[in-house]
Amino acid sequence: MKCAHTIHDHQGHLGWDRSIEPVLVARSGETIAFSCLDAGNGHYGQESVAADILTAEPGKANPLTGPLYVEGAAPGDALKVTINEFAPSGFGWTAIIPGFGLLADQFAEPRLKLWDYETDISEPAVFNPMARIPLRPFIGTIGVAMDAPGNHTVIPPRRVGGNMDIRDIAAGTTLFLPVEIEGALLSIGDTHAAQGDGEVCGTAIESAMDVSVTVEVMKGAAPKTPHFATPGPISRHLDAAGYEVTTGIGPDLMQAARAAVSNMIELLAKTRNLDPADAYMLCSVCGDLKISEIVDAPNWVVSFYFPRIVFE
Amino acid sequence: MKCAHTIHDHQGHLGWDRSIEPVLVARSGETIAFSCLDAGNGHYGQESVAADILTAEPGKANPLTGPLYVEGAAPGDALKVTINEFAPSGFGWTAIIPGFGLLADQFAEPRLKLWDYETDISEPAVFNPMARIPLRPFIGTIGVAMDAPGNHTVIPPRRVGGNMDIRDIAAGTTLFLPVEIEGALLSIGDTHAAQGDGEVCGTAIESAMDVSVTVEVMKGAAPKTPHFATPGPISRHLDAAGYEVTTGIGPDLMQAARAAVSNMIELLAKTRNLDPADAYMLCSVCGDLKISEIVDAPNWVVSFYFPRIVFE
Repeated sequence: MKCAHTIHDHQGHLGWDRSIEPVLVARSGETIAFSCLDAGNGHYGQESVAADILTAEPGKANPLTGPLYVEGAAPGDALKVTINEFAPSGFGWTAIIPGFGLLADQFAEPRLKLWDYETDISEPAVFNPMARIPLRPFIGTIGVAMDAPGNHTVIPPRRVGGNMDIRDIAAGTTLFLPVEIEGALLSIGDTHAAQGDGEVCGTAIESAMDVSVTVEVMKGAAPKTPHFATPGPISRHLDAAGYEVTTGIGPDLMQAARAAVSNMIELLAKTRNLDPADAYMLCSVCGDLKISEIVDAPNWVVSFYFPRIVFE
Repeated sequence: MKCAHTIHDHQGHLGWDRSIEPVLVARSGETIAFSCLDAGNGHYGQESVAADILTAEPGKANPLTGPLYVEGAAPGDALKVTINEFAPSGFGWTAIIPGFGLLADQFAEPRLKLWDYETDISEPAVFNPMARIPLRPFIGTIGVAMDAPGNHTVIPPRRVGGNMDIRDIAAGTTLFLPVEIEGALLSIGDTHAAQGDGEVCGTAIESAMDVSVTVEVMKGAAPKTPHFATPGPISRHLDAAGYEVTTGIGPDLMQAARAAVSNMIELLAKTRNLDPADAYMLCSVCGDLKISEIVDAPNWVVSFYFPRIVFE
């Protein structure tokens, strides 16, 4: 990985806090490698089982590597972060964590799937003999420090970014973050080998990775919330065989989203003979929640798109 | 268009009502052409201007062609509808209708854009010298009669389908609708030449078209709400140059969706020198609302994806 500096995975923090001392100072235009732990902070390994989910300490979840101080970055600027490349670890996990996820009320039991995948992501990751997930590594959590005192938990994303879990913050993407603190204080973590829009079960293919990014200060260009640009297609690794799509229709987007995902789990269970918990995890790592229409009052349509290539 | 029968656009109705007499009876497996008016019911033509929006009668909006009685269809069955092909008219319109649309509070003035496009959709439709929209015709409104007395307005979609405005109910797609009434009573209308997920300004490229569909009864297979399958990729006409993406982050999906679209309008206005109302209409005809994450409580991320090919 070609870069000026590396921030190692022991150089990190839990939660967002503007008072955390930077571990490195970069100039605008420099390329930095961030070595990232997975969101489980190393809790899971090749021998882990579902019961281990119950012993994970929530306070240690989602560790961040950083913060990086970027010279010249000041409140009101945008920090432009170009995502260059990933060096994935080849090990990953997906979990149903009791109390967490879109359908937490329906899936109360812990469930753990371990993945071994090719680090060059040349092959889909194998879920079971029937289902394989094409991979596209991305950064789940990326953000800068907020101008608000104290430690802010890492789970919710905020106006400065953070745990956005946007599956297209992938190689080639350029992300613009609003700077609120001198030096910006950029941190990165929670790398994923694959995830669908929504991350519906609450976890993706969680996987430790190194990622190289180039940082650049854009004076006075702070967006209200993060925006980004992708250099090309975002779904061609998934779309060749089309999609199965279920809908949720009603006056509440959250309930419609829940219905769309529940309907897909039911469809996959029936047509693919999948255990519902397996279907839920599959939905999380490759299926997409879309708002099909949000104007035909009083009922909106949320659709859940599952790529059929997974079963081919 | 190869089909057994044609239902013409004067054979139609306004609103959904299980007591409306079918205009045609089909056998399971037959292919039928539906000749569809646009959602404006012919109100707009080549000479129309924005002021004409104010004289449209809401009660005449979104006319449906049908209903088609399908022999053997009974409550509890699924009606499988395969969308075969479209014969688009080549004329279309997009409007900002006061009081309607995701950002109705911000865009109070009527606005009308007329489109002339190649009926073979071989070329993108021209918005202005700078912006061109790749086309993919689809059915905005498709559904069966509900088992509930009276006339149900056509604007909201319901469990039996209707005005779902799902942009992938396009050629090749197979749609499954829950039958509630003997004969199903299928009606189709509101054809669109292009639309993004969300249909954010409230209108797409509204355009009269003929569409041929094959109907088939699947006994006892009623889904809870419509589901469908696409035979292949859904976005390749749009994705080659990547996307600009804005976000909305917060505890309410509706507010997050509104913020994501507002942020995109602001971005397009600034970077492409577009009038905000033009940007809003462009967002509606080609940009997509996605739920990036819906699990990192208490804040969800809704993203709005605008395809850059429009400006190339």
